[in-house]
Amino acid sequence: GDTTDDLIELANKCHSNPPKREMDQLLATGEQVSIALMAMTLESMGVPAVSLTGGQVGIITEPSHTRAKIKSVARARLEKELAAGKVPVVAGFQGLADGTAITAEGETCVADTTTLGRGGSDTTAVALAAALGADECEIYTDVDGIYTTDPRIEPNARKLRDISYEEMLELASQGARVMHPRAVELGEVYRLPILVASSFREAPGTLIHGGVSMEQRNKVRGIAHDTDVAKITVRGVPDRPGIAAAIFEPLAEHGISVDTIVQNASLEGLTDLTFTVSRGDLAKAMEFVEPVAREIGAAGCVADGTLGKVSVVGTGMQSAPGYAARMFRALFEAGINIEMISTSEIRITCIIKGEQVADAVRALHKAFQLERAEEEPAQA
Amino acid sequence: GDTTDDLIELANKCHSNPPKREMDQLLATGEQVSIALMAMTLESMGVPAVSLTGGQVGIITEPSHTRAKIKSVARARLEKELAAGKVPVVAGFQGLADGTAITAEGETCVADTTTLGRGGSDTTAVALAAALGADECEIYTDVDGIYTTDPRIEPNARKLRDISYEEMLELASQGARVMHPRAVELGEVYRLPILVASSFREAPGTLIHGGVSMEQRNKVRGIAHDTDVAKITVRGVPDRPGIAAAIFEPLAEHGISVDTIVQNASLEGLTDLTFTVSRGDLAKAMEFVEPVAREIGAAGCVADGTLGKVSVVGTGMQSAPGYAARMFRALFEAGINIEMISTSEIRITCIIKGEQVADAVRALHKAFQLERAEEEPAQA
Repeated sequence: GDTTDDLIELANKCHSNPPKREMDQLLATGEQVSIALMAMTLESMGVPAVSLTGGQVGIITEPSHTRAKIKSVARARLEKELAAGKVPVVAGFQGLADGTAITAEGETCVADTTTLGRGGSDTTAVALAAALGADECEIYTDVDGIYTTDPRIEPNARKLRDISYEEMLELASQGARVMHPRAVELGEVYRLPILVASSFREAPGTLIHGGVSMEQRNKVRGIAHDTDVAKITVRGVPDRPGIAAAIFEPLAEHGISVDTIVQNASLEGLTDLTFTVSRGDLAKAMEFVEPVAREIGAAGCVADGTLGKVSVVGTGMQSAPGYAARMFRALFEAGINIEMISTSEIRITCIIKGEQVADAVRALHKAFQLERAEEEPAQA
Repeated sequence: GDTTDDLIELANKCHSNPPKREMDQLLATGEQVSIALMAMTLESMGVPAVSLTGGQVGIITEPSHTRAKIKSVARARLEKELAAGKVPVVAGFQGLADGTAITAEGETCVADTTTLGRGGSDTTAVALAAALGADECEIYTDVDGIYTTDPRIEPNARKLRDISYEEMLELASQGARVMHPRAVELGEVYRLPILVASSFREAPGTLIHGGVSMEQRNKVRGIAHDTDVAKITVRGVPDRPGIAAAIFEPLAEHGISVDTIVQNASLEGLTDLTFTVSRGDLAKAMEFVEPVAREIGAAGCVADGTLGKVSVVGTGMQSAPGYAARMFRALFEAGINIEMISTSEIRITCIIKGEQVADAVRALHKAFQLERAEEEPAQA
């Protein structure tokens, strides 16, 4: 982590907006140092080991620098090292850009280095396990598993024995930072169980898998939260086709992620359109939204950068009634006003004041009795 | 330089004797960081640039880690980037180990990283220039050229306008540290002129090439010196075949470089065998030599770790008489005793007391009038 920050600082000294290809060339060295040192350490403990860069494994990615997606993972080198009894120590977060090696007859060149962007290290681990047809991918990290909610906010938070891919995705994308959604998605595609456990102490960890028995237990599995939420409301929007596209296309083009979108029912042909972005994107988003709002004849734009959100997540929640109602009541009883609501099949999210997020987490954790141990169903 | 030292320190914390393959994996990152930052800097100045690792260029080496020799350099990628108007910034000192990429059908893997060892960066530059069929390889460094001797010892030392490969090799291997012999040898093989000049100031530099007109000028071109010389004498050695091999084979096996070797004329079937090693290797060398000396019935071993050497170098020196005599007289007149003498076609070396090396350099520089500007012959 520190190394990467140091390298980024160096890059910014050399160029105000460093070319992405060169950033990848630069940042890939961080993991290369780590794997070499790790392999040496294992060897010094008498464990035969071999470090492998993304290129040496044969992790081929799309040629999009700083946020490349993995296309394929070769098995030949990994299998050779495993067969030789060596522990392969593979660089995460990096690969080779497909189609960038320029090679003439009899000449060998290596393709350009890519990095995988956010969640790239976990994603590499899952991709390797999938390529090798492993039974399970174990990720050892600085937390010892997935909790019903953030233990720093709710001391009664309980570690989950297991969780489904879908639930983990909702928890992850809603602010539980343990596993990146991208790695979980890849696990889901390959039906590869992922164990998240502590690298610092012996403890069972949490298994993310597809075989969670969902009928026998509390359908709310966890409470996610996020205090980095800003809201933009475009008021008095003419209710005609193409308006939403006009507003959101410029944001997408400039790489601003829009999260929750809510459009109120139209009143006399006018409607209010509200959406959320991360706080850091608020000013930039307003720059693009305000001219569009004027252009389409909207009444105006209002921004609020002080929000947060809280979500209850659980597979099959929507098939059982009353969860939303119980959530709204719990928030009401805790004196928390709901600004926006958004739902998925396995999640209910409320946008609330940022300063009330911690209270909301505790109220919901209690309301759904998440501190109670679950029954222990036979695993599928 | 600092980065490499830091990385070596890290490696030594992980393993008392780090595996060489992993050292290469680790140390190659230093240049990878440099090339990315250099390319960014050029881009920020409006100069299109692209960084290329040894692997991305296609520098294939023998698979001997930490001291690999270059086997071939591919042209395809370099030519593509040059054709696109980009400045390729290539990582020196590194390549891909031939034959180490394990690739199955449809899979792409990258070979193991090697480093080239001592002189590897200069050698990479010359190899690239040779592969591209360049007219000249220009090396910008922290000195502004090749001098008749070390200017820190003899203030009258004069920068040479040009020097032949052979002379440079003798100067380099005899202690002039500007260009590594390996790079000069490669230049000689490909008849590629190498310009050594300062990266800090505008000055003509020195051209190392084959076309030096040797008849028109002072045949002594420079004085080399080295203060890191230790001597071992094996006394009373039986004068029969196989003795030298018995003494030097164990040294070679343990990586101890032997420099000058002198064997005195045999007297009553017994002879003295004297050779030099670097001071740091003296204790280790004695460990191997002493048992051999006992075994072959020699009278004993004597070591002296306080020596140095001084050499006069110049093409065609042996074809003209009197150079050796002039050297010995100059040393005699300066009160310097000669312990050993060794010669090549273009060099005369005297082993002397280490503390007298600086005096010897000044005396020889004066005796051969090296402070005088050479005539300026038309270059070949």
